[in-house]
Amino acid sequence: MLNIGTIVMGAEDVRRAAEFWTRALGYVPRDGEVDADWTVLVPADGRGPGLALGRSTSPVQEHPRVHFDLYTADAAEQKAEVARLVSLGARHVDWDSYPEDPDFVVLADPEGNPFCVIDTTHG
Amino acid sequence: MLNIGTIVMGAEDVRRAAEFWTRALGYVPRDGEVDADWTVLVPADGRGPGLALGRSTSPVQEHPRVHFDLYTADAAEQKAEVARLVSLGARHVDWDSYPEDPDFVVLADPEGNPFCVIDTTHG
Repeated sequence: MLNIGTIVMGAEDVRRAAEFWTRALGYVPRDGEVDADWTVLVPADGRGPGLALGRSTSPVQEHPRVHFDLYTADAAEQKAEVARLVSLGARHVDWDSYPEDPDFVVLADPEGNPFCVIDTTHG
Repeated sequence: MLNIGTIVMGAEDVRRAAEFWTRALGYVPRDGEVDADWTVLVPADGRGPGLALGRSTSPVQEHPRVHFDLYTADAAEQKAEVARLVSLGARHVDWDSYPEDPDFVVLADPEGNPFCVIDTTHG
């Protein structure tokens, strides 16, 4: 049956992106090593979609047409995970569209790809 | 633990996008109904990431920085699923970067968002 197998993100430096995302998500290279042009990461525990990283010169969009949301269990975990991701090389995005009391924090990976970290118990 | 909860895609018409993606993937609206601005779809069987659709004026990129790949079991299923998706409202993309003997077919959803359908047993 058809399923969402892999999310594919562009990177200037695939190895740098893979280093970040393996540590961020607990993923491992599916084929055992990281290729400089194209690498598929999969969950070490087999649960969840894959994340593919491909060398790309397509620009990051300021308001991305497509991105993904990382889920956390509550506000405390959200805060801890944001801090951990920043320590791994993510950066805070100066997001211009936060609502009042948002349930999400916008970060970008070392390649500049924006993503959100969600407190799933918020409001 | 942090996980990829939802892939978020832009749409001009969220209801039209939700109609397509629920049928394409066997997903259902998480909150029971489809909002015109923002809707989260989840797998009916609970397996797999969510797919959120949000009203967006960000343009579709010709070579998307971020997209997703749908997996099929083999070449026959790939062919059947591509035909089914087109019958639901997807269209073939005149992709300029196909390699020789590709394992993927590039389609776009009714909102113009490109995605790939993969034969996971290919080569």
